[in-house]
Formats: sequence, C-alpha cells, structure tokens
Amino acid sequence: MEHEKVDLEAKLAQFDEQWSPKLVGELNGQAVKLAKMEGEFVWHHHDEADELFLVLDGHLTIELPEESVDLDEGEFYIVPHGVEHKPVADGEAHVLLFEPAETRNTGNVENERTADTESI
Amino acid sequence: MEHEKVDLEAKLAQFDEQWSPKLVGELNGQAVKLAKMEGEFVWHHHDEADELFLVLDGHLTIELPEESVDLDEGEFYIVPHGVEHKPVADGEAHVLLFEPAETRNTGNVENERTADTESI
Repeated sequence: MEHEKVDLEAKLAQFDEQWSPKLVGELNGQAVKLAKMEGEFVWHHHDEADELFLVLDGHLTIELPEESVDLDEGEFYIVPHGVEHKPVADGEAHVLLFEPAETRNTGNVENERTADTESI
Repeated sequence: MEHEKVDLEAKLAQFDEQWSPKLVGELNGQAVKLAKMEGEFVWHHHDEADELFLVLDGHLTIELPEESVDLDEGEFYIVPHGVEHKPVADGEAHVLLFEPAETRNTGNVENERTADTESI
C-alpha cells in the first residue's frame, strides 16, 4: 500500500458504510483511515491512543466531558488518549483519522458499533 | 497544542517560508506539519522514518530512484524509510506531512536547506 498514491475522494467513493473506518495507509505503526460519520456515535476512550480527526467534508462535533469542539472542512482536533469522546455529525461528514494501527473504533467499548477495520 | 482545534488554512496563512515545515500537531510520538514547497528540494532519505505527503493545494511531484509520483490536491503518498526522494513543485504547493516528531526535513543530509521545525 505504501507504494501507491492515494486519492482521498476516490477512496471515499468506494464505500457508503458509516462509522466504520477504512484503512488507506500505514506508516511508522500508525494508520491513516477514512470514515463517513452521521448522527451520534457512542461515548468511548482509547487507553493509549491519541486520535486525530481531520474533516474533509461536512461538519463534525466532538463531544468531550466538559466541552465540545466543532470542526469544519480543513480543521482537525487531536483527542488525547484516555479522554472520553463522542463524535456527532449533523449531516454526513467525511473524516480522515490518524491513529495507531491497532486502534478500535469504539475504544474501550464493545457493542454493535464496533467494526473491524477493512483495508480499501 | 492537543487541546485546541487546528484550522489548516489559518495556519498556512501564518508563514511564507518555503521548505521549512511547521509543527501544527503531535500525537503518539508523531508530528503533523505543514509546509510550502516550490522548486526543487534536495535528494535525501530518512533512515527510520516513513513520511506521508498530503497535498492540500497545488501539485507536488515526489521523485524516487526509479519513478516519480505526481500528487494533486487531496492525494497523498507515503515514502517508506530508507528510500531516497526529492520533492519538486512547479508553482507553490501546500503540503501536510505526517512523520515521527524528530524527523529532520533533509533527512540524512545536512546543508543550507536543513531547517529547525518551528511550532506555530
């Protein structure tokens, strides 16, 4: 995968599933993922993984214990490890994630939203 | 820095210097940097660091030993560690870099293009 360039729009066109990040690149033990998000996700945290959310299209709110962060296209936010968070999108948002390769989408929670990371 | 959102366009408006990546985020020992590139850089490699180039604006060519990769806006390429490369931009390109926090812009080479990474 490291030897081909990646067109983010073309990759986004390859899936419709929401809240199920797709792997599009790996480097230095970290993963680059793309996700489509709409509605409310579940509160969770990652014990050891910091997680970067970069909005490519749409708007994303990251709810945190004592505040919320509103992200428009071209804005990113890093959720530090251990911090509870809940992504919420009013309308579909397209998001690039940067996080350790083994990171699970629902973090410490395992439920019906937990998804395996598929490579596309 | 991890506790504020980052607007990529606003950060890009804060500097004009070319070929001198600016630090805009850190997570998991990795750095998110922004750079403006125009003209030809120097051939170099990074012994241990894989390096991701995501074009935000303009066009970037990454010359490699046996091929070159042309990147338009919204496309990224990962240069694996150890691989010689030379970025070339015909017109100014705005580029987001993901790489280990300690990565030097000229890799194994130290010359007049070598730049300290400033946080903005």
